[in-house]
Amino acid sequence: MELTGQSIIGYGRGGKTGAVLNGFNPSTGDVLPPNFYSASEIEVDKSVQLAAQSFVHSDRKGGKERALFLRSIAENLVQFGETLVERTVLETGLAATRVRNERERTCFQLRFFADMVEDGSWVDARIDRADSARIPVPKPDVRSMLRPVGPIAVFCASNFPLAFSVAGGDTVSALASGNPVIVLAHYSHPGTAEFAGTAIRDAALKHGFPEGVFSLLYDSGHHVAQALVTHPLLKGVGFTGSRAGGTALMKLANFRPEPIPFYAEMSSVNPVFILPSALKSRSDFVAEDLHVSATLGVGQFCTNPGVVITMGDSGAFVSRFTDLMAKKDSGVMLNPNIAASYRRAILERSAQPDVRLRWTAPEAPEISENTCRVGTAVFEIDGRSWLANRVLQDEVFGPATLLVHAESREELLQIARCLEGNLTATILGTANDLRDFSDLVSLLQTKVGRLIFNGSPTGVEVCEAMVHGGPYPATSDGRSTSVGGRAIFRFTRPVSFQNFPDVCLPPELQESNPMGIWRMEDGRHIQPAACTR
Amino acid sequence: MELTGQSIIGYGRGGKTGAVLNGFNPSTGDVLPPNFYSASEIEVDKSVQLAAQSFVHSDRKGGKERALFLRSIAENLVQFGETLVERTVLETGLAATRVRNERERTCFQLRFFADMVEDGSWVDARIDRADSARIPVPKPDVRSMLRPVGPIAVFCASNFPLAFSVAGGDTVSALASGNPVIVLAHYSHPGTAEFAGTAIRDAALKHGFPEGVFSLLYDSGHHVAQALVTHPLLKGVGFTGSRAGGTALMKLANFRPEPIPFYAEMSSVNPVFILPSALKSRSDFVAEDLHVSATLGVGQFCTNPGVVITMGDSGAFVSRFTDLMAKKDSGVMLNPNIAASYRRAILERSAQPDVRLRWTAPEAPEISENTCRVGTAVFEIDGRSWLANRVLQDEVFGPATLLVHAESREELLQIARCLEGNLTATILGTANDLRDFSDLVSLLQTKVGRLIFNGSPTGVEVCEAMVHGGPYPATSDGRSTSVGGRAIFRFTRPVSFQNFPDVCLPPELQESNPMGIWRMEDGRHIQPAACTR
Repeated sequence: MELTGQSIIGYGRGGKTGAVLNGFNPSTGDVLPPNFYSASEIEVDKSVQLAAQSFVHSDRKGGKERALFLRSIAENLVQFGETLVERTVLETGLAATRVRNERERTCFQLRFFADMVEDGSWVDARIDRADSARIPVPKPDVRSMLRPVGPIAVFCASNFPLAFSVAGGDTVSALASGNPVIVLAHYSHPGTAEFAGTAIRDAALKHGFPEGVFSLLYDSGHHVAQALVTHPLLKGVGFTGSRAGGTALMKLANFRPEPIPFYAEMSSVNPVFILPSALKSRSDFVAEDLHVSATLGVGQFCTNPGVVITMGDSGAFVSRFTDLMAKKDSGVMLNPNIAASYRRAILERSAQPDVRLRWTAPEAPEISENTCRVGTAVFEIDGRSWLANRVLQDEVFGPATLLVHAESREELLQIARCLEGNLTATILGTANDLRDFSDLVSLLQTKVGRLIFNGSPTGVEVCEAMVHGGPYPATSDGRSTSVGGRAIFRFTRPVSFQNFPDVCLPPELQESNPMGIWRMEDGRHIQPAACTR
Repeated sequence: MELTGQSIIGYGRGGKTGAVLNGFNPSTGDVLPPNFYSASEIEVDKSVQLAAQSFVHSDRKGGKERALFLRSIAENLVQFGETLVERTVLETGLAATRVRNERERTCFQLRFFADMVEDGSWVDARIDRADSARIPVPKPDVRSMLRPVGPIAVFCASNFPLAFSVAGGDTVSALASGNPVIVLAHYSHPGTAEFAGTAIRDAALKHGFPEGVFSLLYDSGHHVAQALVTHPLLKGVGFTGSRAGGTALMKLANFRPEPIPFYAEMSSVNPVFILPSALKSRSDFVAEDLHVSATLGVGQFCTNPGVVITMGDSGAFVSRFTDLMAKKDSGVMLNPNIAASYRRAILERSAQPDVRLRWTAPEAPEISENTCRVGTAVFEIDGRSWLANRVLQDEVFGPATLLVHAESREELLQIARCLEGNLTATILGTANDLRDFSDLVSLLQTKVGRLIFNGSPTGVEVCEAMVHGGPYPATSDGRSTSVGGRAIFRFTRPVSFQNFPDVCLPPELQESNPMGIWRMEDGRHIQPAACTR
């Protein structure tokens, strides 16, 4: 496929007159052809208008057709073969293997949602039948199910150019539940975005979806983002990025004449609690495991373990962990902005009171300043000083870890109590520890979306039970997850039908259950006659 | 029970030093004893602190205990007998029968949620088991369920002193899912609030719930409301009231350093579409049915049909409807503010361009100005003029109806297209109409929470399938409902546990399924061995 640099507006193409942006090779510092062109305000408006028009008749494409659509997107991504991988590697500095794995994950996710909507039970269909004999008033027939909300804007993540970008999690959740999607490409991987956008457009065409079910916009600054989020016909937003960017967009979404649901995944330090037994019996193993998690993808994972809390004799662990971090090869970050932010954050953290810098090499000396190559950093602080300084809860995006030493059980609990919202918290210890520290478990449950025992926070399984979310500021809306089966709920709302003739109901709610889905009927879970799951 | 006029702070009582408020008899204009005292800032803080403390150990009280708690609240409300009914009648001007029915509905709702949490399946438990042999990386064990979010503030509605107030929908949803609740009493029925608050406190004490699971605050102005919504430990808000009040609180909730979920049910004109066949074949029946719905509770229902759209020859219907509305006895509104707003709104609407006033008696002449007695009003306008004036979509809270005449099918659809979000839309016609107007049905689905065919919007059934919600400005968050089984989700969020030892998991997620609930296991719905539902 030849890259054109143009936005995708419905089934057409954007112009070549907007401000130019380019891909950038973070390993070499080279600007990459071709030029990409920012969408105009007219193009933004057209993409949302088309989406809104396509949406009114969204019920004409049922779950089985949406499943075919999603599977075709995956096929198209695979068919690009190494052409796509090469472009993504060039634009992101990520290794080819990682990119191939991420494509596989993206396709798995597309098929996972395809299976879910093909089955159809996810809509939570509920039927309460009429009772005309009820006293004092007859009971009406009420039936309800989850429905899509309308045109959704999706903002791509820098750190997952495939799995959390154009054909990534939010797009798949929104399309699967029947919403049209307008994606804003990330400036850091515009070519990868065009590949994925083409995969979606071609799949939509193939399966006869109405124009407007998908558009892809480029933006050299923030104009397109603002025009999109404030468009009166837009009905929801998914965003993955920085806390500053997410907060700014959240304000736009909340301040519209009609406020709309806004899901931002923003920042998380993913605290790891190492309990005394783990420090005593397996500090080497813990240090090795943790350093792998802390340096994975040059620390650019939203689940990177940024803060590690120890209790007890941590000397051996700290030595071993610092040693491993110091020996870790430098790595190329995704783009110059991210590398510069990382270097700045290391300096700022070093200057915080009571923070001891155990190791740092944020600028690998052998490399020129133009590139994005950085090294690791390890900081240390005692629990009391950590508790006194809220700034130390801010995420440092990159391979930096802050070790916090709690001097008592009470201090450990106080640290947990003072934590802001996070995506994950991890406890390393024994099963007995979990019972002895049941108050820690209770506290952490109120702070995170996912609690991990004796594992690493990095690695987010795509499965029905996954929760990749958490209270603010991990996300802007802790009621949702951006990964896993529950993500299909984020762009939906329940709609009920009262006393509707059977033939006029959506098939999910018709008396004969023609789709064979699980339903709640008169308060009971009812297994479909021919259960396919 | 003797009314004290004091807030309920945990298991204690508020002071008697705050600004005074009183109940008011809208039928007579009399101020009612005793004095009620606004909570102090210290009392607000204490109620939230107690709630937060109680919440950390909320998992110690399982669904079965919460069910007993809810059922005891209902028993206590019943035990107050006529004492409660008399006080509510005095404070609200509602008829005793209506108050008795509303108490019955409130108790039914408490028991409905009690049954739900006793069963326990509502938590949407999901289990994805480990697969250590998976290539390229082992699959972890991931289990998740819905959990409560923390201290919730509930703002009472004026128009449902029992069912949407202290022991009403939001309180029940929040308590049922395991959250502590701080209720702000409505100034319009402080005595009723103390009855219901006492019912909850006594039930909490009886079942050994930790202090802080419930508090009740009085507020003579807006200070307590502001202190409550901006309290750093508060985690969610439920509100039923005006669009102005809801919007102001929504801004407070969104602007906190930590934004929190905010559910306001605010305003709705509940459009009724009368299709040509209904006008032709049964205009008298339609007019009679509609006027009952439009005047129910002196028009003070959130589902009051404020806008009626006709297409075709509407002459007979309009005459009959106007006649019935004009003959309707005047009624007493809930309080002087509401009556004054209604009178003002009638004048303002009369002055709108192209609006024809068919009938009005907003001030019943036989009654002095001090009271809250008002009459009905009927307005008329053509479809094109309605489309040109957005103000006509504003709710007039009271027994006023605006009749809009569409001159064509296209104009009818354009009216539907331009509607703001509403709680309900109603279609009157034949089953054939529904098929002929399938585009109307498609459009209305995107605008409302509940679609009614050949019925009245008033009357909101408490059942699993009910959706009492809708897009903005009907509510601040169209993803939720404030009535019915799905309301239990509003103050919850999913939490996942990865690789946790079985004994440390919540019982809902343990391998043996000790609670016997429905779960999703490895992607399949699994019926519990001993299914109780």
